[in-house]
Amino acid sequence: MRAEIISVGTELLLGHTVNADAAHVARELSALGVDLLQVQTLGDNGPRLEAALREALGRAEVVITTGGLGPTDDDLTKETVARVANVPLEEDADSLARLREYFGSRPMSSNQRKQALLPLGATAFPNAVGTAPGCAVPVGAKGWVLMLPGPPSELLPMLRQSVVPFLADKGGAVIASFMVRSFGLGEGAAALRIAELTDKANPTAATYAGDCEMFVRVTAKAPDVDAARALALPVVEEVRRRLGSVVYGVNVESLEAVVVAELIRQGKTVATAESCTGGLLAKRITDRPGASQIFGYGLVTYANAAKMRLLGVPEDMLRVHGAVSPEVARCMAQQARREYGADFGLGITGVAGPDGGTPAKPAGLVYVALSDAQHVWLRVMRPQGRYLGRERTRRLASSHALDMLRRCLAGLPVEDDWALENNGTAIG
Amino acid sequence: MRAEIISVGTELLLGHTVNADAAHVARELSALGVDLLQVQTLGDNGPRLEAALREALGRAEVVITTGGLGPTDDDLTKETVARVANVPLEEDADSLARLREYFGSRPMSSNQRKQALLPLGATAFPNAVGTAPGCAVPVGAKGWVLMLPGPPSELLPMLRQSVVPFLADKGGAVIASFMVRSFGLGEGAAALRIAELTDKANPTAATYAGDCEMFVRVTAKAPDVDAARALALPVVEEVRRRLGSVVYGVNVESLEAVVVAELIRQGKTVATAESCTGGLLAKRITDRPGASQIFGYGLVTYANAAKMRLLGVPEDMLRVHGAVSPEVARCMAQQARREYGADFGLGITGVAGPDGGTPAKPAGLVYVALSDAQHVWLRVMRPQGRYLGRERTRRLASSHALDMLRRCLAGLPVEDDWALENNGTAIG
Repeated sequence: MRAEIISVGTELLLGHTVNADAAHVARELSALGVDLLQVQTLGDNGPRLEAALREALGRAEVVITTGGLGPTDDDLTKETVARVANVPLEEDADSLARLREYFGSRPMSSNQRKQALLPLGATAFPNAVGTAPGCAVPVGAKGWVLMLPGPPSELLPMLRQSVVPFLADKGGAVIASFMVRSFGLGEGAAALRIAELTDKANPTAATYAGDCEMFVRVTAKAPDVDAARALALPVVEEVRRRLGSVVYGVNVESLEAVVVAELIRQGKTVATAESCTGGLLAKRITDRPGASQIFGYGLVTYANAAKMRLLGVPEDMLRVHGAVSPEVARCMAQQARREYGADFGLGITGVAGPDGGTPAKPAGLVYVALSDAQHVWLRVMRPQGRYLGRERTRRLASSHALDMLRRCLAGLPVEDDWALENNGTAIG
Repeated sequence: MRAEIISVGTELLLGHTVNADAAHVARELSALGVDLLQVQTLGDNGPRLEAALREALGRAEVVITTGGLGPTDDDLTKETVARVANVPLEEDADSLARLREYFGSRPMSSNQRKQALLPLGATAFPNAVGTAPGCAVPVGAKGWVLMLPGPPSELLPMLRQSVVPFLADKGGAVIASFMVRSFGLGEGAAALRIAELTDKANPTAATYAGDCEMFVRVTAKAPDVDAARALALPVVEEVRRRLGSVVYGVNVESLEAVVVAELIRQGKTVATAESCTGGLLAKRITDRPGASQIFGYGLVTYANAAKMRLLGVPEDMLRVHGAVSPEVARCMAQQARREYGADFGLGITGVAGPDGGTPAKPAGLVYVALSDAQHVWLRVMRPQGRYLGRERTRRLASSHALDMLRRCLAGLPVEDDWALENNGTAIG
C-alpha cells in the first residue's frame, strides 16, 4: 500500500509551527509497512489543496491530511475532500452527540456545530481530546482520504486509536511492532551494534533518536498476529542482548513510566530535591497516574537559602564547594530521603544556562545524585564540545536521575557501568 | 516572489526526524516577503526529486532544497539539480579549499571531496559548521534553485549568512509579522470577535489554537519594513482591543516568559505550592533563564503529610474539606508566600486523573489560588462535558496559575473578569 501526507495550514508555511504531525503519521505508516511516497505542506488554500489531493490520489491509495478541520472559515479540508470525492457534507449524528457532550451546558455556536459535518459515506474517527472528529472517505474505486486534526494532542490519540487499526484492516497483513527503548547510548553507537539487523526486510529494525534517548523499532508483517509476533520476538531479544542494560523497556511509554511502575511493584518511595531542573523531575514522576503511591515530597530548592532550609545543606558546604558541586548534589539526595522519609532520594544541581556559567563551571555542567539507606551515587554531565541548550540540559539531567533509580531498582551498577556504556558517545 | 521548499531524506518519510528545516526556511521567507506556495518532502529518490523540481519551477521562481548534499551515495540532490539546470558538475576551488581546511591533517576521502562539486554557474554558500557547501543555481530565464544542507546546525547559519542576503537582493517586498497571544478564550470565540479582520488580504489576520491558548497572527507586506509595520500595527491594536485583557503579549515567547519578565521588572518574587501539577508550574517558571531572580522555593506537596509539614495546612482542613478543595488551594497559596518569604504564592490542588475521581470531585476538577499580602484569589477548573486527560488538565491548571499572576501584576481582575471573558468557551 502506498500513501501520501498532505499537511494543511498557513502557519506551517509561515514557519510558526514545525510540521510534527507529518513525522507522527510517517512513523505509524512505516510501522504498518505502508510506503510513504511524499509529504506536501500547503496553506489554507482550497484550489491548491484540491489539486494536490487529486495528484496524490493518482500516485497513492491512501492520502492522509492533517489540519484544517477546525471551526473557522479558513478550515477547508473537509469541503475540499468532499468535492474531490464528489459527495456532499452531511451531519454525522455520533460526532454531533460527542460535540454536545464536549460543550456540556455551555452554548455551542453554529461554526462549532459545523465540525460534525462529514463527507457522505465517511467513517468517523472520534476526537478523544478536542472538538473536530477525523474521518476516512472513500474516493474512486480503491482510494481513501483520511482526515486528521492538526493539534498534535488531538492527532496522536486518533492516530493510535482509529487510523492504525483502520489501515491495518485495509492492508491485509497484520503487523507486530515492538519498540525497544534505551537511555545512555548514542544513535550512532546503537546503530553499529545492531548493524546487520537493520538490513532485513521482514522483520525490519530501525533506530530512532528520541528525546535524549535511543529507540529501536522491530516490525514484522505476517498473515496473523501470532505469526507476526513469532517473527519479531527473536529479533527483539537480539536487539536487547546487543544493547545491554541501557535498555529500559520494550513497548513501554517512557523512562518515568518504568521507574514509577517498578517503585510501586517494590513498594518503595522516592523524594526529589531539584535545583537547575526546577521541578521537571517531579513533574515527570507525577506525569504518571498512580504516582502518589511512591511520591509524596518534591523540593524545588532553586535558591541557596532553600537548599539550607528545606534540605539542611550546610552553609559551609555551599560556600566552600558552591551550589553546583558533587558535594551539594550528594547532600541534596541524602537529605531529601532522610528528611522526608523516603526510600530513595534524588538530587540535581547544575548550570542549566545559557547564562551563569564560568570557565570552571560552564553552562551544561550538572551533578545528579541518588541516595538509598546505604549508598550515594553520583553522575556528572559535562558539556563536551557543545552546550546543548537550557531545555535539553534540563531534560537530560532529569533522565539521568530516573535512569540511576531504574538501575538501582534493577540491581544494576548505577555509576560505572553507565560510564562504560557511554564511552565515546554524545551523552554525558 | 514565489518560492517552494523541497526537503529530501528518507529519514523524514520514516518519521525518524521532524522536518524542522522547512520551518526554519519558511520563517525567513516569510520575513522577506517571499510567498511560500508549498513544502514537499521526498525520499532519497532521484527521479521523484527531478519531477518535483521541474513541477516546482513551473509554479515558483525560487525552489529551495534541504538535505541530500552529503558525501554518501544516497545524497543525490546536486546531481539532480544539475540535470534539471542542464549543466555539468564542476569542482569549485573555494569549496575545495574550505574542505581541505576542515579536514586539516586528516585524510580526505574521494566521496568527501565530491562535496566540492557544484553545478556550473552556481554561487557557492560556504558551510560554517560542516563539510557540504550550499549553492544557488540559475535555471532557465529567471528561476533559481537554492540547495541547503540537511542538518539544522549547518542550515541555520547558512540561511542567515548567505540565503537571506541572496534573496533580499533578488526580491522586492518586505513582511512585518506580529503574533498576538492570549489565554482564556477558545479559538471559536476569538474567531467570532475578529471575524472581518481575517477577511483582509493585506494585512492578513489568522487565528491559531495553541497549547490551551489562542493566537492571532497579523502579517503585512510592503516595499519596506516601516511601511509594512505601519500597515500591520493598527490591525494588531484592533485585535488586542477586541480580544481584551486575555491578550498576554505580542511577539512574546510564552505566558511564563511574560510572567517571569514582569516579576523581574517589578522586583517581585513568587513561591509555588503544587499538588496535582506535581512540579509542572515550577518547571515552567524555571524554563526561563534568569528565573532565579524571582523564584527561590517550589513545594511539590503531593501527599497530605507534605501539605501539613511544608505548608502548615491544618489537618482539620484536610479532613473536613479534603485535599481537593477551595480551602486547601487558598491555604497552599497563602502559606507558600508567608512561609517562604515571597511576594506572591501560587497553590494548585485537584484531581489530575484519569483515576481518583468521585462524583463530587471528578477527574479534571482543579482549584488554583493566588495570594499576595492582602488578598487570595481562586479559580476553579470544572470538567465540563469531557475530561481533558491528565496531561492537558495539568498543563491548563499551571497556565491558570500563571495567568492569575499575570493579571494581578497588571492590575487586572484576577477571578471575575476571567469568568466573564470565558463565558461560553471551551476553557474552564
